[in-house]
Amino acid sequence: MNANLFRSSIYISGLCGLYLSAAMLIPALADLYYGNPDWRIFALSAAMVGGLSLAAAMATRGTPPVFNKRFGFFIVNLLWAVFSLIGAIPLYLSPIGLSFAQALFESISAITTTGSTVLSGLDSMPPGVLMWRSLLHWLGGIGIVALGLFVLPFLRVGGMSFFKMESSDTNDKPFAKIASFTRAFMAVYVGITVACTVSYDMFGMSHFDAINHAMATVATGGFSTHDASFGYFQSLPLMWIGTFFMTLCSLPFSILILFAIRRRLDSLRDPQVGFFLGYLVLFAILAGLYNHVRNGVDISVAMTHSFFNISSILSTTGFASEDYTLWGPFLVVLAFFATFLGGCSGSTAGGIKAYRLVVIFNVIRAGTKRLIYPNAIYPVRYGNATVDPEVLRGIFLFVSLYVLLWAFGSLCMAMLGYDVITSVSAVITCLSNVGPGIGNIIGPAGNFSTLTTPALYLLSLMMLLGRLEILTVMVLITPIFWRR
Amino acid sequence: MNANLFRSSIYISGLCGLYLSAAMLIPALADLYYGNPDWRIFALSAAMVGGLSLAAAMATRGTPPVFNKRFGFFIVNLLWAVFSLIGAIPLYLSPIGLSFAQALFESISAITTTGSTVLSGLDSMPPGVLMWRSLLHWLGGIGIVALGLFVLPFLRVGGMSFFKMESSDTNDKPFAKIASFTRAFMAVYVGITVACTVSYDMFGMSHFDAINHAMATVATGGFSTHDASFGYFQSLPLMWIGTFFMTLCSLPFSILILFAIRRRLDSLRDPQVGFFLGYLVLFAILAGLYNHVRNGVDISVAMTHSFFNISSILSTTGFASEDYTLWGPFLVVLAFFATFLGGCSGSTAGGIKAYRLVVIFNVIRAGTKRLIYPNAIYPVRYGNATVDPEVLRGIFLFVSLYVLLWAFGSLCMAMLGYDVITSVSAVITCLSNVGPGIGNIIGPAGNFSTLTTPALYLLSLMMLLGRLEILTVMVLITPIFWRR
Repeated sequence: MNANLFRSSIYISGLCGLYLSAAMLIPALADLYYGNPDWRIFALSAAMVGGLSLAAAMATRGTPPVFNKRFGFFIVNLLWAVFSLIGAIPLYLSPIGLSFAQALFESISAITTTGSTVLSGLDSMPPGVLMWRSLLHWLGGIGIVALGLFVLPFLRVGGMSFFKMESSDTNDKPFAKIASFTRAFMAVYVGITVACTVSYDMFGMSHFDAINHAMATVATGGFSTHDASFGYFQSLPLMWIGTFFMTLCSLPFSILILFAIRRRLDSLRDPQVGFFLGYLVLFAILAGLYNHVRNGVDISVAMTHSFFNISSILSTTGFASEDYTLWGPFLVVLAFFATFLGGCSGSTAGGIKAYRLVVIFNVIRAGTKRLIYPNAIYPVRYGNATVDPEVLRGIFLFVSLYVLLWAFGSLCMAMLGYDVITSVSAVITCLSNVGPGIGNIIGPAGNFSTLTTPALYLLSLMMLLGRLEILTVMVLITPIFWRR
Repeated sequence: MNANLFRSSIYISGLCGLYLSAAMLIPALADLYYGNPDWRIFALSAAMVGGLSLAAAMATRGTPPVFNKRFGFFIVNLLWAVFSLIGAIPLYLSPIGLSFAQALFESISAITTTGSTVLSGLDSMPPGVLMWRSLLHWLGGIGIVALGLFVLPFLRVGGMSFFKMESSDTNDKPFAKIASFTRAFMAVYVGITVACTVSYDMFGMSHFDAINHAMATVATGGFSTHDASFGYFQSLPLMWIGTFFMTLCSLPFSILILFAIRRRLDSLRDPQVGFFLGYLVLFAILAGLYNHVRNGVDISVAMTHSFFNISSILSTTGFASEDYTLWGPFLVVLAFFATFLGGCSGSTAGGIKAYRLVVIFNVIRAGTKRLIYPNAIYPVRYGNATVDPEVLRGIFLFVSLYVLLWAFGSLCMAMLGYDVITSVSAVITCLSNVGPGIGNIIGPAGNFSTLTTPALYLLSLMMLLGRLEILTVMVLITPIFWRR
């Protein structure tokens, strides 16, 4: 690291701050529109953040440094840290009475599109605060897709380089030009958000609820404007709409973009898509049947709720239509394990992710065959491609770290006094960026409002680690990173 | 598979049955000595099993088939199945009132050296039954070491082939000749058992308790002759003796053998030994300090209990000196995660095992370095050796299957109606062959006596899968195995 890199990092952070301060005018307008005095908080925050950011950017303007990996890691971490802090400012200043740790947790939960909340009494919350949370979700979603599609493959984190390889040797020309790709992505992202808003609105949500839930849906975030989350609306059609959009936004955005640009659906053949939809449908049917058989719930109602809540967990959104953990112990355990999995890479979803699960599945398949014929060659495959041993090692590394961090975080939570269910499920729901956990405190009917300050900091860190695919953050604590 | 292989398998099983029927005379003698009429059950079982086995062996005698991998897998599974069934017979016939599923569970728990029990009221149990359980532990321990040292490396299961490689290019001559190695192993195994018995006896156990607990200790099994397990004795010296022998028997037996034969300790440099002892001491100190600080327990008492119970879990023995889950939530979570880890390979311990953990640790270390210098070569190391990508893939395969089976088993347990803690901890304690789980039912103060028949069958299967390193069993359900 050298001074030029630091300077340039501050410059980029300043630009990011300017955008965010501009974004704060949206909740300010919402508060003004609904006649809430809170708009001053957002205007003040915008002025402060905007002024500081502008000053920082002006002071550090200059020739950008050569972009290398070290700078890449540094700037990604810095941007997410700045984004988190700026997001927390209006929440901390607003009169809803959050401590700094709570405001920071809420902000990180928003931008990592986790959706775990420290707020209760959402139904009577100022509209600006609600809008800000949703907006942070939505902006975070953009950051995540950009990270997954452009940054992580470049940094070679988590075996994602595989996809870089993949796209370079196929005829996916749109990937060639980042600028045109970005425009296409934004068009698709905005388009889906508008479609989702209109659908929610048509089927009974208020305009305000529709736009907030649409932003939270498309970013697979999960913040609601009601304590009862989606359960507030008591509407089966709305649940199916939610299911559709949550699932759609757990698919790789490259598919949606290619479809939008060329009306081509070939990339649906990406094995992770079928795999993801496969376990989603399997789990949803199992959960629905279980609720139907065990509790006598009408089958169509049971299936609506199970598809909604399972796709909410697997897309790592985190909405809930009701407390599904009351359906019975099978749902508790299913929700717990489903929290690890997540959606497809290149989407706004978190978790271990479907493409890694496909590789693991194929490692198992090839491995069992090889037991009998040890000298035959059974390469691990991903669709038509052979998975390189280096990529395999990258995935092994990621999954090991994931599980290790989960164990470590759970031990810390238990040391802070939390029971075993809360400890293990809080950490995994944050690491996977899902939202609710299981158990009495942080289950789908609960929230994170009673958690102590150290627990909130720990879980905030877990959300960031999960979102940045762990290694991106961890590399900062290796001595080798700071060597000149 | 062909007829000759089947015939030969039955022949080998018959021989195994003959040995086991002879072993039944030991509990028969114990019952006779203590004047318990139960000796008839053991005599009857011995006669039945002995007669049948002899007939089977006589009928199938002939030239042995060429030993190939397919036959290897088949015979290993068959022998463990036969061993389990024969072990269950006297338990089922004895008047202690076990269902068949319970007797089979108890037998499998014994021979896999798990130590989960369906029996309560152990203190007033007939001595023959208690002796039979301990003896099955002890014999199972021999089978496990043989499996780990000779069979699995040959079958190339679970990345163990690494150790085969290792031993072939070092100067460990004793490994060359299986026969002399087996004699040395038996001498060491018997020697340690005698030493453990004498130590227990000298520090206050009755002769009967000493010999039973010694067999359960050396096999890292965990069956006790008292409901309170080691807590019955209320003796700190006995707990330290137990800690020493449990830990000793979680080390690779090759080390003990080399030491016995040559007074050499070089193989202590096997990285898994230091790693295992490292996490054992770390966890024990953390647990002891926690109990001391949180509950005000005298530090030496707290450390004695923590070293005993942590080494009991990590050696996958499963004795308990008291209900350590009452020390606080940190211990519940620590006990839960420790259940996954296990001891060293080549010992009687189960779990994921220290050598795999060493490799995972080194994958993480090398992977973090590579992030900065992607083109530099950072091979994954195990001590001085480089871990082959194929071995890495084998370990990845094993750990993935381990976690997958745990999730699958837990979902089944929940489907059977068990709460989340019981479900997830019962499955992992059986898969790792530890013994107790966490929670009210199967925690260190509980037992498996109230579990329903389907749950017992499921958990019996998990114990066998864990003991045979999963793939050895799973290969039987692949179509490729049964192809001619």
